[in-house]
Amino acid sequence: MSSLGNPANIFWQECSVGKSDRQKLLNQKGCVVWITGLSGSGKSTLACTLDRELHSRGKLSYILDGDNLRHGLNKDLSFKAEDRVENIRRVGEVAKLFADAGLICIASLISPYGKDRDSCRALLPNKNFIEVYMNMPLEVCEARDPKGLYKLARAGKIKGFTGIDDPYEPPLNCEIEIKQENGICPPPSAMAGQVVSYLNVQGFLHE
Amino acid sequence: MSSLGNPANIFWQECSVGKSDRQKLLNQKGCVVWITGLSGSGKSTLACTLDRELHSRGKLSYILDGDNLRHGLNKDLSFKAEDRVENIRRVGEVAKLFADAGLICIASLISPYGKDRDSCRALLPNKNFIEVYMNMPLEVCEARDPKGLYKLARAGKIKGFTGIDDPYEPPLNCEIEIKQENGICPPPSAMAGQVVSYLNVQGFLHE
Repeated sequence: MSSLGNPANIFWQECSVGKSDRQKLLNQKGCVVWITGLSGSGKSTLACTLDRELHSRGKLSYILDGDNLRHGLNKDLSFKAEDRVENIRRVGEVAKLFADAGLICIASLISPYGKDRDSCRALLPNKNFIEVYMNMPLEVCEARDPKGLYKLARAGKIKGFTGIDDPYEPPLNCEIEIKQENGICPPPSAMAGQVVSYLNVQGFLHE
Repeated sequence: MSSLGNPANIFWQECSVGKSDRQKLLNQKGCVVWITGLSGSGKSTLACTLDRELHSRGKLSYILDGDNLRHGLNKDLSFKAEDRVENIRRVGEVAKLFADAGLICIASLISPYGKDRDSCRALLPNKNFIEVYMNMPLEVCEARDPKGLYKLARAGKIKGFTGIDDPYEPPLNCEIEIKQENGICPPPSAMAGQVVSYLNVQGFLHE
């Protein structure tokens, strides 16, 4: 075996421009907003609205969308259990790089298992991982079915679909919960506003 | 088999904030500066100096260092041939995301094979992949041996080491070549200056 594979032979390259320098340049703090929830719960809608709202405030954000990454970085991965874990691990690692670059990284993935989300949280410095739980009833998500996937899952044409024949584990300690009020889903601007308020109060919107 | 694995069931999420909006915010154009060369050829030195120089000009750049990523995103990969290809593929995909986010992404990897570098180039829009070839003689790199790896390779303790018992394929059409002048290596500031000049002339340093 090559001893190059020995971690002792992989060096860590330190650089003189650090996260704090980039944060000063951008006048913001790098972090990860991790949006989790069922298919159809509004993750992408929130991600896009939040991205637009932050941009309008002169903040630099970037969306890592679970589906989009499956066309690129994660195109070698299937939907079997271990590949789903690896899919989330890679998104977590890339989100960490974006946060280190000083961006507000918005990750939007079903990410149904608490364990996988917690592994991504553990990659980030304390408080820099902001978990947003799209707490929408399954019936609402299924009625929306924007991609027609619930229909396929109910017809047995998709196996292991989250919420149908695979579990979704709600976050136990998320930073932000988006839910219905009196049976009504908040509009996208209200959902994004909830996240922006949190980011503002926590000091992420200035250096 | 799950039909969720069918590409037809993975949707592309379009967002209203695009690369050009982020470029306006940053007053620069996103791109990838891909630094290739032997171990000890000065890739990391150039990456750091370039990063500092760009930061001093108010530009947002970020370094993807091959060794550093092996502690995170690519920690599941070994140094066997197919894993090296996958290592470079992933760095290329992540670099593409950073360029799309509007950053000047500086990727620093030995990346010895032309085919792998060309695959990364093909991910980026035309002219947004800037290949920098550290054309330093093997003897110079081996004499530096900053990580002591050539010594291990010559002693047979590392197999498949680029330049010793594994080939390095020089780029055929790189955008920038860094080389000795009259047997003297240019200082880091001159190497970085050469790249900054190129970026400036090509219009990457303003929106």
